[in-house]
Amino acid sequence: MNGWTGKLLRINLSEEEFYLETIPDSVLRDYIGGRGLGVKLYYDIVNPEIDPLSDENPLVFTTGPLTGIAPMSGRHSAVSKSPLTGTILDSNSGGNWGKELKYAGYDALVIEGRAEKPVYVKIENGDVSVESAEKLWGLDVKTVTGHLSPYGSVATIGPAGEKGVLYASIMNDGTHALGRGGLGAIMGSKNLKAIVVRGTNKPKVAHIERYKNAMREMIRLLEASPPINKGLKVFGTSMLYDIVNYLDVMPTNNFNDVHFDGGDELSGDSIVSRYAIKSEGCWGCPIKCKKWDAERNIELPEYETIWAFGPNIENGNYEKVVKANLKCNMYGMDTISTGATLAMWREIKGENLIDSVESVIHHEDLKLGSMRIARKYGADDRRTDVKGMELPGYDPRGLYGQALSYATSNRGGCHLRAYMVAPEIIGKPKLIHRLNPEGKAGLVVIFQNLNAVIDSLILCKFTAFAMTEVEYADLLSAATGINYRAEDLLRIGERIYNLERIFNVKAGFSGEDDTLPEKIFKGKHALSREIFNDMLNQYYEFRGWKNGVPTEETLRKLGIYD
Amino acid sequence: MNGWTGKLLRINLSEEEFYLETIPDSVLRDYIGGRGLGVKLYYDIVNPEIDPLSDENPLVFTTGPLTGIAPMSGRHSAVSKSPLTGTILDSNSGGNWGKELKYAGYDALVIEGRAEKPVYVKIENGDVSVESAEKLWGLDVKTVTGHLSPYGSVATIGPAGEKGVLYASIMNDGTHALGRGGLGAIMGSKNLKAIVVRGTNKPKVAHIERYKNAMREMIRLLEASPPINKGLKVFGTSMLYDIVNYLDVMPTNNFNDVHFDGGDELSGDSIVSRYAIKSEGCWGCPIKCKKWDAERNIELPEYETIWAFGPNIENGNYEKVVKANLKCNMYGMDTISTGATLAMWREIKGENLIDSVESVIHHEDLKLGSMRIARKYGADDRRTDVKGMELPGYDPRGLYGQALSYATSNRGGCHLRAYMVAPEIIGKPKLIHRLNPEGKAGLVVIFQNLNAVIDSLILCKFTAFAMTEVEYADLLSAATGINYRAEDLLRIGERIYNLERIFNVKAGFSGEDDTLPEKIFKGKHALSREIFNDMLNQYYEFRGWKNGVPTEETLRKLGIYD
Repeated sequence: MNGWTGKLLRINLSEEEFYLETIPDSVLRDYIGGRGLGVKLYYDIVNPEIDPLSDENPLVFTTGPLTGIAPMSGRHSAVSKSPLTGTILDSNSGGNWGKELKYAGYDALVIEGRAEKPVYVKIENGDVSVESAEKLWGLDVKTVTGHLSPYGSVATIGPAGEKGVLYASIMNDGTHALGRGGLGAIMGSKNLKAIVVRGTNKPKVAHIERYKNAMREMIRLLEASPPINKGLKVFGTSMLYDIVNYLDVMPTNNFNDVHFDGGDELSGDSIVSRYAIKSEGCWGCPIKCKKWDAERNIELPEYETIWAFGPNIENGNYEKVVKANLKCNMYGMDTISTGATLAMWREIKGENLIDSVESVIHHEDLKLGSMRIARKYGADDRRTDVKGMELPGYDPRGLYGQALSYATSNRGGCHLRAYMVAPEIIGKPKLIHRLNPEGKAGLVVIFQNLNAVIDSLILCKFTAFAMTEVEYADLLSAATGINYRAEDLLRIGERIYNLERIFNVKAGFSGEDDTLPEKIFKGKHALSREIFNDMLNQYYEFRGWKNGVPTEETLRKLGIYD
Repeated sequence: MNGWTGKLLRINLSEEEFYLETIPDSVLRDYIGGRGLGVKLYYDIVNPEIDPLSDENPLVFTTGPLTGIAPMSGRHSAVSKSPLTGTILDSNSGGNWGKELKYAGYDALVIEGRAEKPVYVKIENGDVSVESAEKLWGLDVKTVTGHLSPYGSVATIGPAGEKGVLYASIMNDGTHALGRGGLGAIMGSKNLKAIVVRGTNKPKVAHIERYKNAMREMIRLLEASPPINKGLKVFGTSMLYDIVNYLDVMPTNNFNDVHFDGGDELSGDSIVSRYAIKSEGCWGCPIKCKKWDAERNIELPEYETIWAFGPNIENGNYEKVVKANLKCNMYGMDTISTGATLAMWREIKGENLIDSVESVIHHEDLKLGSMRIARKYGADDRRTDVKGMELPGYDPRGLYGQALSYATSNRGGCHLRAYMVAPEIIGKPKLIHRLNPEGKAGLVVIFQNLNAVIDSLILCKFTAFAMTEVEYADLLSAATGINYRAEDLLRIGERIYNLERIFNVKAGFSGEDDTLPEKIFKGKHALSREIFNDMLNQYYEFRGWKNGVPTEETLRKLGIYD
């Protein structure tokens, strides 16, 4: 079929063997690519009770039918079971790596087993090899990337992944991250330091004229979108700092407050006025939301990172945030979980580690993340995570839709599974009341399903500031030749969300886990438990779930049989 | 205050006297203009139990702070109690008349009493007079408009309004209509044939640079919007015909079916291919969605009119629709209610009046609309109205959100109070499942509130294909100098909606009236009563209403005291 190669490359590190398999057309059609395809392939291979850091836990990388042929499509997904949360985990990253994997001819890459000694995987179109990485082991992300980049685009772990930090990331193209949930620790557990890929075969689309028109339409809409043109292009995600703080939804001091007064240096306006800004983008991106300090040639932090090393540990010094961000990227660690873990440590132990972020790698408590620290020190009521994944810098107490989406996210406390930031803070595609439960349950379902689709196409989520299902469907139909209607896409998103949920149920999760930290329900800014429970019950009703578990009827309706 | 003149011109036709009153700043700030201001002024004057066609029932015309200064702002509102429904009624119309009234210096014009003999009102800036219309009485809309246009922009009734047709319209600038709910019959009952207005004072805005930027942004977004550029600009509203029929939400044969097979001539594509199209627009409009036949220099019908004289009476002959539309505009009758009344007559009496639309004016049954016909002939189960206003061409059986918004509309069966057509059919600003109750109640509340605001600014609803609350708030703030946030606008919309509802409650309506015709709940395409009732109960919960009535707490929260 056009849009897909149908090829799955399976590499078993224990046996040092490779297999080329064919993915059934129906799987590609019904799960598209990226997150959807990754979840489906992973689900079909794995016993959900598997230990995430065991040899048997596979790591699935995927591309999608739009990867490398549309604007903002330079992305790939990875799916596995998270060592941080124990849930199914999908993560996606920008840059160039996904486009190379797609051009090399693969819809999916599955890594299984464990190498005896450190190795890296080298892929150049049809040529695949496993090489020794003994000389690379222990090296930081930028050094490894520099060593291997002559062979292609590099995805690598840093020392954090090697040491089993539960929130270690996989970094590609130097500064792009499969950040959340500890995929880097899984690579580390396999003695797999890096995967370097080069591909030279650009995929064909089914209907070239229709595709060109759809692309033109996409570019026109991107150019017209205010949050893109006035926000992301100029400030990157730091555009969010001022509005988040203004609305009192800035988690501060480990979620003990919702507003930070000392952050003048941290706002987008202030940053852009102080630094010589250079804009960098992923493959095929006209926005270039990544901002660099042109003078020192270093990347500047995203909004969530500014929050994590700023307000959440009551630090107003931007340069300290910049340094912490650089260290996280060098050592290969998720900045949100790192910052949240530091904030928890500061609250419980009174020790501020902002200047020695790298120390978490060797620290038996800190490497396990905030939930396990709170538990160990009898401070369960101080937790700031959902299902073990630390909440990011959008306070659920002032964002009812985001609150519900955190609680019901299949990978734990993540803002990107429904991205209610768009309607609740930015007012796109439609402003909704932040502090009103009305209609939130239905909207969270719709946005979760939509984001599952965007993650599967796979496109950058920021496209949703300009495009709707109508344009996504048009682009996908033109590329694949399959007639997807806008409504079909939402149904596919629903299917993916339910399949993830079923995995989690089999892994031991239930509706009891669809909740928020106790802190959120306490204090002067508290979210009412009654309101939250009402929204959650409505959410289950709309989802066709009973106590967080999809009913048989719901699964049958979606074509999921087990 | 900038943006408003603060002036209310009050004309008592019985006494032939004029008063100039000052509208309090707080009323302007809290109700903006257009619909909101009209509802507030009307509510404060009138006993809700008034007979709509009595001398004492005032007719309130309003402009808004953006009228005549922004793109797509050539609009005015009128508010009164509807003779068709007995509810509060607001209607708005495009063209030029609203801009003239604003430039003449008035935020509002209140017409009270009843002239002894036919008159027309003439306004030129501060000069106001009541003139004899004895020579105009009995003339059609185009003739009257031609006679009076040397004095300014003309709003007039045709013979239908004179004869008390309960769905008579007020036509301005020849072809624009305050269409629904019988405002023309109210003018007729006052012996008021026309209002001609000329104004020459362009209002000033508070912050000129900010305003220019906001306008530029608006124009950029309008130009980029697909439904505007690919749809309305090319086809006008007839763009909807094919998709509505494709989705099986085309009410056919007086709502006995949901799909019409014989309408090839009626689709937008077909019309544009057959006629030499000329595009006309309201004042300040870059879209120009009104389509004319350039050869014969006649206006072509809107989508709802095509439906009313097409599928709903099983007529596939487009020229017959064109003629019926011209007659309605000449005689001054709402095309939706006229067509729906014909369809009801055809079902009950077996007589098809498509070729003699004008006969309804003299017909004691037909002039009363479809609800009263059904009642008279013992066919209550054949009704196709909500609260007496006939449903338009979007079938609620296949559009759950639209269904709920019809039932809860304060003026009866109207598609424009929430315009769920946008999310449920066109997929803007965000596609939602048509056939799924999830989240519909909350969304209908949000969209009703938003549309109450757009109707109050007052801008064309099609701006919402491109703009969100964020841009509306920016434009309004720049014009007025008052800092409106996006969230403030939704709160204002909520206030307006609740005030309308309170009027209706005092006029004798309750939750019992928030329902749909029996036909909708029957037959093979039936909407489930259970699903509908669930949505309605949720809707009341979100609204803070008990059995359709706002609670005291809800009103207090909105600053409505009684």
